[in-house]
Amino acid sequence: MTSLDTVIQDLVIANRILAKEEVVDAYGHVSIRHPDNPDHFLIARSVAPDLVTAEDIVELGLDGMPVRDEKRTLYLERFIHGAIFEARPDVMAVVHAHAEDTLAFGVADGVKLRPVIHSGSFIGAEVPVWDIADNFGDTNLLVTNMEQGRDLAKCLGPNHVTLMRGHGFASAGRSLIEVVRMSVYLPRNARALTRAQQLGGSIKYLSQGEIDARNRGYSPYSTETWRAWEYWANKAGCGHLLTRPGR
Amino acid sequence: MTSLDTVIQDLVIANRILAKEEVVDAYGHVSIRHPDNPDHFLIARSVAPDLVTAEDIVELGLDGMPVRDEKRTLYLERFIHGAIFEARPDVMAVVHAHAEDTLAFGVADGVKLRPVIHSGSFIGAEVPVWDIADNFGDTNLLVTNMEQGRDLAKCLGPNHVTLMRGHGFASAGRSLIEVVRMSVYLPRNARALTRAQQLGGSIKYLSQGEIDARNRGYSPYSTETWRAWEYWANKAGCGHLLTRPGR
Amino acid sequence: MTSLDTVIQDLVIANRILAKEEVVDAYGHVSIRHPDNPDHFLIARSVAPDLVTAEDIVELGLDGMPVRDEKRTLYLERFIHGAIFEARPDVMAVVHAHAEDTLAFGVADGVKLRPVIHSGSFIGAEVPVWDIADNFGDTNLLVTNMEQGRDLAKCLGPNHVTLMRGHGFASAGRSLIEVVRMSVYLPRNARALTRAQQLGGSIKYLSQGEIDARNRGYSPYSTETWRAWEYWANKAGCGHLLTRPGR
Amino acid sequence: MTSLDTVIQDLVIANRILAKEEVVDAYGHVSIRHPDNPDHFLIARSVAPDLVTAEDIVELGLDGMPVRDEKRTLYLERFIHGAIFEARPDVMAVVHAHAEDTLAFGVADGVKLRPVIHSGSFIGAEVPVWDIADNFGDTNLLVTNMEQGRDLAKCLGPNHVTLMRGHGFASAGRSLIEVVRMSVYLPRNARALTRAQQLGGSIKYLSQGEIDARNRGYSPYSTETWRAWEYWANKAGCGHLLTRPGR
Repeated sequence: MTSLDTVIQDLVIANRILAKEEVVDAYGHVSIRHPDNPDHFLIARSVAPDLVTAEDIVELGLDGMPVRDEKRTLYLERFIHGAIFEARPDVMAVVHAHAEDTLAFGVADGVKLRPVIHSGSFIGAEVPVWDIADNFGDTNLLVTNMEQGRDLAKCLGPNHVTLMRGHGFASAGRSLIEVVRMSVYLPRNARALTRAQQLGGSIKYLSQGEIDARNRGYSPYSTETWRAWEYWANKAGCGHLLTRPGR
Repeated sequence: MTSLDTVIQDLVIANRILAKEEVVDAYGHVSIRHPDNPDHFLIARSVAPDLVTAEDIVELGLDGMPVRDEKRTLYLERFIHGAIFEARPDVMAVVHAHAEDTLAFGVADGVKLRPVIHSGSFIGAEVPVWDIADNFGDTNLLVTNMEQGRDLAKCLGPNHVTLMRGHGFASAGRSLIEVVRMSVYLPRNARALTRAQQLGGSIKYLSQGEIDARNRGYSPYSTETWRAWEYWANKAGCGHLLTRPGR
Repeated sequence: MTSLDTVIQDLVIANRILAKEEVVDAYGHVSIRHPDNPDHFLIARSVAPDLVTAEDIVELGLDGMPVRDEKRTLYLERFIHGAIFEARPDVMAVVHAHAEDTLAFGVADGVKLRPVIHSGSFIGAEVPVWDIADNFGDTNLLVTNMEQGRDLAKCLGPNHVTLMRGHGFASAGRSLIEVVRMSVYLPRNARALTRAQQLGGSIKYLSQGEIDARNRGYSPYSTETWRAWEYWANKAGCGHLLTRPGR
Repeated sequence: MTSLDTVIQDLVIANRILAKEEVVDAYGHVSIRHPDNPDHFLIARSVAPDLVTAEDIVELGLDGMPVRDEKRTLYLERFIHGAIFEARPDVMAVVHAHAEDTLAFGVADGVKLRPVIHSGSFIGAEVPVWDIADNFGDTNLLVTNMEQGRDLAKCLGPNHVTLMRGHGFASAGRSLIEVVRMSVYLPRNARALTRAQQLGGSIKYLSQGEIDARNRGYSPYSTETWRAWEYWANKAGCGHLLTRPGR
């Protein structure tokens, strides 16, 4: 396989993992920056992530428009991806999803979503909440053009995740594996924090030093990182699609 | 297939989806107005939704009585459907179910069920709670005649969903796909709101303008709507029964 | 098949249903009074309910002792069943289980477990909590002799369910189908009540008149009751074992 | 099979059970002291527990280092196991995991994790919380050397379980079956306690006498204990690997 074929196959795996782990249902999507052209990204056409195959992957510009003639319908919210790739050259992969257990943190202001468990450290110390109503008034809450996408990317700033009020979240990673992992552990961290708050008393969050220490250990193809990717892919029924770099 | 065969097959798919998504268990049902006769509707005989096949679908009048000779037992609560179709010419499909996470909102008056997430917008700004005891005293809580059905339909009014105290809910849509979608996302919205209330602070509900904006985008066979229908049908093991209009 | 064979097969189905619905795990058991001898009852030998086959069913006296030579190990807590059958001639079937969502109501005294949903009505208006420590001090919490079993049966009194502090519950029905149904909906009612209490405000329980009205409609082989039995058996993978009386 | 082969096979089963019961995901591990050499222990190489086979099991010294030439990557946190085996000659098996429902008790100080249900008795009356930051400051929260492992073992003391703040737990048993059982019922006890606290009022914990009574009944291969092991192994799809001692 060419390098591009491998990237596309990894993107298929990512779609299936996110579906199996209930980060996405029929809605939500994951993208990766094109390996040979940083001004393009790859994402599925409008289809449920669980059903994505290599043939469904399309190539879009950072403006969210297809770079080749494309008759198939595209995700309405592909501008989330384009705008984040545009604003953040360090970001290689993006997820937008509505994972259920993150939603409450976008609509209630009682507790801020912050890391309380080590696997949640990658969401970073700060998780801003973007409210589309602030700059766009009454909408259908979907990010359907670049202006809205750029507003969201601005709110994300240098962070890894932003909640979207009444809607879901967008997460941005340095690799596909990282953004998938972040998106799987974000709801888990949300659940742990929700329960901690129910138990009462004071809550011990991860310190900035701990978040930094974990971040320094980042390596997209370390044995530890690969272990989860391999596990999730097998669980999602697509272990046979796995390709490990350098093997 | 004739148009009626397609409608019946879609109704079978709807039954299976609602079972798989845990909106119904052995109890609960979904109906659709007859495509050629607005005074009739189609619904399964008394059988668990997960086991419904085309042969189980019967045709009833708006009074809940079979229009042809029918020896098989019918759902006791078919009057819910008849009465809503009678009162609401705009309604094309009805679900009655006991989805677990909606139940608390029918028995506790601490928080009203309202949309907090975009996928919950279709339940509408107002979700009334119907208490059968108000007009019928001590019953077995089931809607077993037209009088009770009409009382429920009156409480529903122009809304899309009504909770039924100590029992479940009834939802009414402009198409089968819409009512299934509403019934799947109703419990999700209920869970998100329950957790938001646990987190504390103030809660930001969808505004009326947002609900209206989402409603204006309604289209039963858009790519976006179909995406979920296709996903749910595959997940429920009946993707092979799918028929897409105009394809 | 003889009548006894059918009863045994139904008991196998009941075991599998309770396992699939997560009422029992490796522990917990279900019994039925012997159809020809009210002083005997049928229950599995010591094996996980999910693995029970007809060969595992043994016949015990109301003292919990095997009526025939039996070398296989029996459930330690079979005395729960014997003592309830002894005290309650109206009871035809018994379940003892540790269904997770019922446990909190046995250890916290903030809210009493009472019916809030129509499918929970069969647990009855009163669900006593039996604490083995009251009369037996520090034990391993298991009911391992007739004295303890009779103490539990006394606490149950004329009710349908008793919680067992720090342990689980015992439920008693007029038929196998009824006791299975009660045991499946008991945790659901517990969850609905827990959430209602979280939502706050006042909670509307089923009235005594409603509980009575539902109870009057009891019929172990009605279409409505059978619908659930058929559904659960299919879901548990043993639909092929179903036998419907009078068909 | 030799005795060692049987032990290794049991360790494979333990890995699969812990994965199926969602005690571990891609992360978390289980070990057993070597049956012929108390200064060695057996554990998988760095691979997700659900994918472990006999070939993945490696033999390590109590310092966490492999006793034979080993090119494969090992678990970073194997020192948890080594340090506990070193400090506690009575301990024959160790689990480290991040079971989600235990996490809140490690970060909130409102309620202490203590047994409220009989199956939770084996965690013991006291469950200390170890915070790696107390003696090691800002780390990535992982136990990656013997010094940290020994600090954890010291906090565990004579207990059976210690929570690890923001991370998970370590549990120590007198047999593999015991430590697996403890690790499965620990999250269940945590959930029951969380809900009890939500219901309000006072909570009745297991008394010390009850914990002692249950502990006296400990027997790793009793019918009752085996029943769960057999059930979990079958549920995890590896019932065919079961070997029962003395049969």
